[in-house]
Amino acid sequence: MSNSQKNTSWKHRLHEIIYEADTKEGKLFDVILLVAIIASIILVMLESVESFDNKYHNFLNISEWIITILFSIEYILRIVSIKQPFKYIFSFYGIIDLLSTIPKYLSFILVGSYHFAALRALRLLRVFRILKLARYIGASNRLLIALKASRAKIAVFLFFIVIICVILGTIMYMVEGEENGFTSIPVSVYWAIVTMTTVGYGDISPHTPFGQFIASIIMILGYGIIAIPTGIVSSEMTKSNNTTVHTNTQACPNCAKENHKDDAEFCYNCGSKLNP
Amino acid sequence: MSNSQKNTSWKHRLHEIIYEADTKEGKLFDVILLVAIIASIILVMLESVESFDNKYHNFLNISEWIITILFSIEYILRIVSIKQPFKYIFSFYGIIDLLSTIPKYLSFILVGSYHFAALRALRLLRVFRILKLARYIGASNRLLIALKASRAKIAVFLFFIVIICVILGTIMYMVEGEENGFTSIPVSVYWAIVTMTTVGYGDISPHTPFGQFIASIIMILGYGIIAIPTGIVSSEMTKSNNTTVHTNTQACPNCAKENHKDDAEFCYNCGSKLNP
Amino acid sequence: MSNSQKNTSWKHRLHEIIYEADTKEGKLFDVILLVAIIASIILVMLESVESFDNKYHNFLNISEWIITILFSIEYILRIVSIKQPFKYIFSFYGIIDLLSTIPKYLSFILVGSYHFAALRALRLLRVFRILKLARYIGASNRLLIALKASRAKIAVFLFFIVIICVILGTIMYMVEGEENGFTSIPVSVYWAIVTMTTVGYGDISPHTPFGQFIASIIMILGYGIIAIPTGIVSSEMTKSNNTTVHTNTQACPNCAKENHKDDAEFCYNCGSKLNP
Amino acid sequence: MSNSQKNTSWKHRLHEIIYEADTKEGKLFDVILLVAIIASIILVMLESVESFDNKYHNFLNISEWIITILFSIEYILRIVSIKQPFKYIFSFYGIIDLLSTIPKYLSFILVGSYHFAALRALRLLRVFRILKLARYIGASNRLLIALKASRAKIAVFLFFIVIICVILGTIMYMVEGEENGFTSIPVSVYWAIVTMTTVGYGDISPHTPFGQFIASIIMILGYGIIAIPTGIVSSEMTKSNNTTVHTNTQACPNCAKENHKDDAEFCYNCGSKLNP
Repeated sequence: MSNSQKNTSWKHRLHEIIYEADTKEGKLFDVILLVAIIASIILVMLESVESFDNKYHNFLNISEWIITILFSIEYILRIVSIKQPFKYIFSFYGIIDLLSTIPKYLSFILVGSYHFAALRALRLLRVFRILKLARYIGASNRLLIALKASRAKIAVFLFFIVIICVILGTIMYMVEGEENGFTSIPVSVYWAIVTMTTVGYGDISPHTPFGQFIASIIMILGYGIIAIPTGIVSSEMTKSNNTTVHTNTQACPNCAKENHKDDAEFCYNCGSKLNP
Repeated sequence: MSNSQKNTSWKHRLHEIIYEADTKEGKLFDVILLVAIIASIILVMLESVESFDNKYHNFLNISEWIITILFSIEYILRIVSIKQPFKYIFSFYGIIDLLSTIPKYLSFILVGSYHFAALRALRLLRVFRILKLARYIGASNRLLIALKASRAKIAVFLFFIVIICVILGTIMYMVEGEENGFTSIPVSVYWAIVTMTTVGYGDISPHTPFGQFIASIIMILGYGIIAIPTGIVSSEMTKSNNTTVHTNTQACPNCAKENHKDDAEFCYNCGSKLNP
Repeated sequence: MSNSQKNTSWKHRLHEIIYEADTKEGKLFDVILLVAIIASIILVMLESVESFDNKYHNFLNISEWIITILFSIEYILRIVSIKQPFKYIFSFYGIIDLLSTIPKYLSFILVGSYHFAALRALRLLRVFRILKLARYIGASNRLLIALKASRAKIAVFLFFIVIICVILGTIMYMVEGEENGFTSIPVSVYWAIVTMTTVGYGDISPHTPFGQFIASIIMILGYGIIAIPTGIVSSEMTKSNNTTVHTNTQACPNCAKENHKDDAEFCYNCGSKLNP
Repeated sequence: MSNSQKNTSWKHRLHEIIYEADTKEGKLFDVILLVAIIASIILVMLESVESFDNKYHNFLNISEWIITILFSIEYILRIVSIKQPFKYIFSFYGIIDLLSTIPKYLSFILVGSYHFAALRALRLLRVFRILKLARYIGASNRLLIALKASRAKIAVFLFFIVIICVILGTIMYMVEGEENGFTSIPVSVYWAIVTMTTVGYGDISPHTPFGQFIASIIMILGYGIIAIPTGIVSSEMTKSNNTTVHTNTQACPNCAKENHKDDAEFCYNCGSKLNP
């Protein structure tokens, strides 16, 4: 075996561990990553609680550094182990990975870079990448199939809701007026959405009898039409019960595309050989 | 080709562009109209935000004039290109088109005609006319079919909700009384609707133990019976999955009726020839 | 035709008009009654609005007297036209009819009988009797069939919700304590119901971090399990779509039982001949 | 019949009464227990209402003692009548039984043991044991089957909701900031859950226009995706309508395992003979 082949084989293994989840090491890597992400999110959260940050500032700071360095190593390994690094770097997850790792380094250079800190919360998005694991239980995939099938209907429905809320919000702005908290049409539309979706904060609420009458109609409408998206998904779910679901977690070692068929041997996107 | 034929042919083309959406120009017209409507709605909204209006009053005013003139031209073209103009003028959309265009001109004559301004929000209703486009994806039609089929059941259900709310509201008026915010039966009924639909503003809330007990029952009731409209629509959606959906966007050049069958050559309403 | 026969025939006609809805006169009577009930409810509502009552007290008083007298006449006619008057008088609707008619007469004798006034709201319950009309559209009956079939499941579900709310309410009482508004276990249970059913008044809300954590769990739970009653009714509705629905509005002239089969000629309860 | 046999037979009968529900005595025992549990819960609730406790302290105290002694006797009988007492003592219900009985005795020894009092609310959990009765109506079992089948999907869905709430909460923390009530990321996540689940307390609500815009999106999202769990359960319920449900209420006299098949003669867990 030549040096170059050895090199490739070593990259092959790394690729399988980092990008896939059908070997023992690959699964272990995903579990460790999941734990690191969740720990990191809890750190970001606790840091924002002033009383906690005052007490344990040093502990939080050091833990954050450890996690940032771990994620940096992972980021570099991801670049190294793939054949077309730029495809990964400019992919959705590649950008997320960079953005969620960089803030800590920035805080070293720019002392007041407080606002970048929250970018670290983006790390949570990386959890979805690990959901490859969840795919094994078949549940999340079936959900996605039903959702994709009903995407168009739900979009039409939500578009419809927004239009109704704009019209009703404008009516309420005219009926209640600025003296009752409906200070502008956008605020009234915001109120109409709060009411229609049955959230009902109560920060703005109608005070005139006619306003309360219209509000009642909006509420009953909102209460009634919640049935529509539900009906859509229900009927799709019933259908999707008969569909077979793919559980192949392989990612192309060349272009990082996923969702290959169960018996795929070559990438459907770039045609390169998949890891056996 | 005679002059009269030329004239008719010119009207034909205009009718196809403005009223229909199965030619390239027709689709383009609809997209432009959609953008204009949305832009116009955003203008109406921003105008109502005092701080914004103070700063950019001139910009808002000029933009509004441009859009009003565009809509006026469209209105005139719609009248010109149809064979029976009065059918359009007194149709639902004809009235909407007029009402939503006129306020700006009125503000020219009557300086203080502030209240008419909000009429421009009606323009949003015109979006539904353009949904002819959406019809192509089949989704909105299927939704409408399921909703029409379950119309009677949902009406009975909402009627039932209103009756329950009136009775429970009256009971709460007796139990809580005016000192706890339930100042009259209509207000109590309003509260019952707020509670039953799980909106829950909290502007009025029960304070006596017995009132809280009744409120709990209303909430659990409302939480339980939301299942009913959902069940209705779900079962209708499941049925409608098997129905074929028409995607003909033609409108009769004579009487403007729509919803013709896919292979219709003559209007089902007035019998005149449809545009090929 | 003998005198007694004439008398019976006259009663027959009256019975058909008042108790049934399959003759022209019967339908007309029901529509008039419906209008009278709704008018009467609006009167009761407006009377409770102080500012309105002060202005139009005389108008409200006279209208109420007219409606009360009309309902009294109807009550007497109902007793006269049925063969077994006591069966009607002590039936559910018989008692409702009496209770909702009597308060106005009482106000004549007892000047301060304010509290009886609200009993008139019970008149609204009479609307359900007239829903015999609605039965024609078949919708309300289908709804009732699906609801009856899923009654047991929904009862178990609501029982389950109440138990969870009691346990979670008790936990919140311990966690948040009286200083945060959770003054007693019943109040905490009330709060848990408000939260679980996604009503969320906000009159009581958790302030400690741990309390907010538990509240989050309750909310997600409530958001998730609303699916259960919906699922129950959906699956029942799908089944009930195949069931035939009876639309016979006849009532037995002897014992006033309803829900006879479509081709019934004799009462299934007492065996007496039904009106042809 | 030897003495030992008599003894066993006596234990047999007791076991059948206490642990099962297919004899007349067994059902009666369950009903009495249900009443005692509910009475006891009402006592715990009333005790926490200060004004009530001040008035009727003695009555509450004596009633509580009576119920505590009754539950103690039941606890001892449960231990005596089973062949492997430790299996019961360390089972879930065994621990619940002990924890919910002991607080009153502790209050005798430790005068200030106020906090243990609420442990008595755990008694309510015992109601689920008696739901063996409910199993007869078949409803609760069918519900459980549908829920178990959709467990994985609902878990994935709730996991998804939590991730979205964390990300949206963090965004809102950045947008609204501490001056608008979003004091830390955990509080903002709590707010996002309150909004997404359409609870909407209103204790925290967005004040900046951009914050209200994001809040609107969260609400519409929450209103739309409530369809997902509903769709899941609906499709499972439809399936489970065809499943047969076991109504065997026997518990193994040796190891107390339940859920035996309808025609089971031996325990599927330890192999000992079930009561005929």
